Amino acid sequence: MVINSMEQQFLTWLDTRLAQQTQDETGIGDDCAVMHSLPKSSHVISTDIIVDQVHFDVSRHSPHMVGRKAIAVNLSDIAAMGASPDYAVVSLVIPMHWNLTQVQELYEGLLQLATEFNTDIIGGDFNRHEGPLTISVTIMGHQTSDGLKYRNTAIVGDDIYVTGPLGGSILGHHLLFTPRIEIGLELSLHNSVRAMTDITDGLVIDLHSLLNAHQGALLYADSIPLRSEIKADPNALTRALYDGEDFELLFTASPQFTPADLTSNNHRDIYKLGVIRNEEGISLEDSNANITKLTLHGYEH
Amino acid sequence: MVINSMEQQFLTWLDTRLAQQTQDETGIGDDCAVMHSLPKSSHVISTDIIVDQVHFDVSRHSPHMVGRKAIAVNLSDIAAMGASPDYAVVSLVIPMHWNLTQVQELYEGLLQLATEFNTDIIGGDFNRHEGPLTISVTIMGHQTSDGLKYRNTAIVGDDIYVTGPLGGSILGHHLLFTPRIEIGLELSLHNSVRAMTDITDGLVIDLHSLLNAHQGALLYADSIPLRSEIKADPNALTRALYDGEDFELLFTASPQFTPADLTSNNHRDIYKLGVIRNEEGISLEDSNANITKLTLHGYEH
Repeated sequence: MVINSMEQQFLTWLDTRLAQQTQDETGIGDDCAVMHSLPKSSHVISTDIIVDQVHFDVSRHSPHMVGRKAIAVNLSDIAAMGASPDYAVVSLVIPMHWNLTQVQELYEGLLQLATEFNTDIIGGDFNRHEGPLTISVTIMGHQTSDGLKYRNTAIVGDDIYVTGPLGGSILGHHLLFTPRIEIGLELSLHNSVRAMTDITDGLVIDLHSLLNAHQGALLYADSIPLRSEIKADPNALTRALYDGEDFELLFTASPQFTPADLTSNNHRDIYKLGVIRNEEGISLEDSNANITKLTLHGYEH
Repeated sequence: MVINSMEQQFLTWLDTRLAQQTQDETGIGDDCAVMHSLPKSSHVISTDIIVDQVHFDVSRHSPHMVGRKAIAVNLSDIAAMGASPDYAVVSLVIPMHWNLTQVQELYEGLLQLATEFNTDIIGGDFNRHEGPLTISVTIMGHQTSDGLKYRNTAIVGDDIYVTGPLGGSILGHHLLFTPRIEIGLELSLHNSVRAMTDITDGLVIDLHSLLNAHQGALLYADSIPLRSEIKADPNALTRALYDGEDFELLFTASPQFTPADLTSNNHRDIYKLGVIRNEEGISLEDSNANITKLTLHGYEH
């Protein structure tokens, strides 16, 4: 407790605001939050820190959008494990000149998405400084041990899928995307789904992170779904391959898997765009069956 | 994975360095870390973010000391619940001009204390920017439900204790303190120990955080232990009352409790310095039995 009227006002507001949301034992205010442990579950944890001028621009993006993104990027990591989110802790470092309304708007952005995905915010930290707005979120989630999806479990011959169109996220999607929790949970039920991650640094580099030693991948240029905002862009395909922060799930599945196996409507947005091979490197096959090797580089945050 | 040679070098080093320490399933590198759940335990979580020029000064403090402090402040929160630390996740935002050696030194400071307290670093995030060094640490721990110590459980008539001398932490202790995990765990075994926190914002303000409605406290001036560095300071008592970041445990206990009940040598550093009363406010009694009301203010980080 720092005796500082703006912080006190914020914490008082937060206490009331979170009381509507939180089901935990202690609420905000003790030295630690207490989590209820879930029997027969594996627990997963993800942490991401986002900073003004690196991951967003406070001169152009509203506090609400920035708060929303801070929790969305973490929920995307939980989705990439095929897990359900349960709890979050949120640390803020606010610019000294910010007022209470701005902090509240930021927190409302966080809370809106947290509530949508049944995530209780159970703790945090609050500081002010002369530097940039900085938000650190840590999320805990759970899944059965069998249901968890890892990166390093792809097998040669697996098909490669993505849960939505790619490229041009910087035009707005990177702030407004919906974390793919629902489809991640549905994919977790299928043993034929093998390796999974979310696309944060770009399709090519994140696909590379799924490959084990001596594995490679072939992507079909015509099958890579392009986000509508970039379809007219002459570099659309390159952007879909290399732009970051798509936050779609990228996964491999055995040939037995087909999106029609999914019971929800989610399969409408699932695209098969390649295959895991036993030849190292990632290559692209165009409509004339010409194959070119892709360079490995990604999006720099 | 951002393709950036310094980050890649750091992550490669970290992967090797943490492999020596981590016992978890996935290690650094997947979307989430997986935690082993402990049966019959309550889980606690604490998060703190520290920033250059607010909590430390990189022009005067070594990266090793800063890294050490980043995890120590969180371990102190775990200690304040009477809990054992288990897992940590660490997010770094590094100034653009830092080199690999500096980042490694910072991490070594973190790891040294993490290892000392059996805490596995199982995940994190790494970014660079033009702003100040920022470190966010989240620690998970456990204790039996009965053993957990909360802030709001003091009873009128409880004695007030502290686990070490106070004041002048800014002279060095705030960087080099040992989190009171051991004594916290021993105190967790005693039902006579009622409310507990750690001193971060100052004795008076943290004591205030232990009080329930209609409760107050009386402190005995002659019983407040002074850190040796400030004993010659004419304002020593005021500093012991109001300086922050002592990171000692402050707890209340029923009159049945005596430090001699503790089996370890820890009781040598335990001081009884007051009592919980049913009169609101915090007062100070001097050696002439004069009682003055203390103002409520604390240390601003």
